[in-house]
Amino acid sequence: MTKADWIAVDWGTSNLRAWVCDSNDNVIATPGGDKGMGSLDPSGFEPALLELVAPYLPDTGTVPVIICGMAGARQGWAEASYAPCPCPPPGLAQAATAPAIDPRLQVSILPGVMQASPADVMRGEETQIGGFLAAEPDFDGILCLPGTHTKWTHISAGEIVSFRTCMTGELFALLSNHSVLRFGMAGEGWDAESFRKAVSDAISSPQNLSAWLFGLRAEALLNDTGAAVTRARLSGLLLGLELAGTKPYWLGREVVVIGAPKLTELYAMALTELAVTSRQLAGADLSLAGIRAARNKQEI
Amino acid sequence: MTKADWIAVDWGTSNLRAWVCDSNDNVIATPGGDKGMGSLDPSGFEPALLELVAPYLPDTGTVPVIICGMAGARQGWAEASYAPCPCPPPGLAQAATAPAIDPRLQVSILPGVMQASPADVMRGEETQIGGFLAAEPDFDGILCLPGTHTKWTHISAGEIVSFRTCMTGELFALLSNHSVLRFGMAGEGWDAESFRKAVSDAISSPQNLSAWLFGLRAEALLNDTGAAVTRARLSGLLLGLELAGTKPYWLGREVVVIGAPKLTELYAMALTELAVTSRQLAGADLSLAGIRAARNKQEI
Repeated sequence: MTKADWIAVDWGTSNLRAWVCDSNDNVIATPGGDKGMGSLDPSGFEPALLELVAPYLPDTGTVPVIICGMAGARQGWAEASYAPCPCPPPGLAQAATAPAIDPRLQVSILPGVMQASPADVMRGEETQIGGFLAAEPDFDGILCLPGTHTKWTHISAGEIVSFRTCMTGELFALLSNHSVLRFGMAGEGWDAESFRKAVSDAISSPQNLSAWLFGLRAEALLNDTGAAVTRARLSGLLLGLELAGTKPYWLGREVVVIGAPKLTELYAMALTELAVTSRQLAGADLSLAGIRAARNKQEI
Repeated sequence: MTKADWIAVDWGTSNLRAWVCDSNDNVIATPGGDKGMGSLDPSGFEPALLELVAPYLPDTGTVPVIICGMAGARQGWAEASYAPCPCPPPGLAQAATAPAIDPRLQVSILPGVMQASPADVMRGEETQIGGFLAAEPDFDGILCLPGTHTKWTHISAGEIVSFRTCMTGELFALLSNHSVLRFGMAGEGWDAESFRKAVSDAISSPQNLSAWLFGLRAEALLNDTGAAVTRARLSGLLLGLELAGTKPYWLGREVVVIGAPKLTELYAMALTELAVTSRQLAGADLSLAGIRAARNKQEI
């Protein structure tokens, strides 16, 4: 079996994914799993990593392992301090070293990026941004990275100039699974027209959000609204609220939406309602591209 | 032991509370417990009631039991259909009869109130409103009943004219206990100035809510903000959003806030920020007063 020359890892709160690369920088395996940072204490990271990559480690010599994401948080494997923006996506020179017992592992964790005012933080997205910039170094515009905590970032001259995080994804999950609205969400389906209407409602009158949320429950009780409508309207209300609050980012700019295709599609639909043209990119491979870029970056 | 002549019950989602009354209409006991509607199937209601009131039942004869609240929901003991507003708080003539095996129990459940457009529902609050109106029949103004699902109601000529429900309390509970913000909420305390500032922020710019929520997490990470500030700001942001959305209710009106004293105090503080004068009333006894009023009401 081909052995690893180096390994890239995207280690998030809920999952991790590794790319095992050979000496020609070809990916020879992409093991992954659910041992995210949220379920581990500091001593649990090395065993979780070995479980995935041990078969690819050579018998002797050291293998660089370069990690991005929540593994670098204060409660992670080793804290990688945030780089303050404006800044380019951090390179390997700024990485923290994580302790490893296995002598073959040489583990570095890339920093996240912080913004002092308004206070904001990212961990992992800066590496996807680095991957994007590796392919489009002269990009000047807005990157939107939807997820549990969606990031809107202004990119110019190879730097993250400023950014803003919205809790949209987490709010959707909480309300769908844990609130009184969960009773109306059993069942499949998606009503595109309800989504569009809700985006437009929330953009025009974001102050009504709290009442509209309970309105979903009342509609289900009084008018037997189905799950497809309730789910699409909940999603649209939350995304509309986000878009109302991030107008300084998208207004009159080029927006590239980076993430899982189902999610970027939703954002593109909502942006179309605002007459904003957007481009969609799959996020999964950008983490590897970003870790590669961080590894190759010359120290400044 | 004095026996019951009739029994009033406020049966909510999480709790129930009974008032056992003698033939002079004096309250002789107020048993209560946590067997709320949410934890019972239809066959569980009668045993849960008997557990509380059996000692007060006479050996023979029937005792009227009048219930308000979620016990009348579709998944409750027996469905009591909503009365459509505008309407006065419903009386006993509109109550549903619930099946009881014990021949001494004659169980009636008061209806909730619905609004067709915008779709909205209440169960239990209409009875507290009835209790309020029993004492102040000529009230013309706004009643605000804060809770998990806060109700804003316009009252005129003894009727519930219209109402609006906000999910503020449920959003606060979800975000405090289940979101990423929970990490910043361990520890006691309350920072009144942060609460006031947050109310004012959310009223001026409700569209920023989603970003401000994540900002609480970022502030905690970057600036070690304590739980007292985080909790007060979260509460203020959500209450400010609610007030921004319910402006048609409170603007230029008299507002009476009915509920648990800690909660009505918060609402009064927030309303003061808007130069709205409010009066606070404890909600607990209004349910009994409302059930009494429903019992005594002449059929129309």
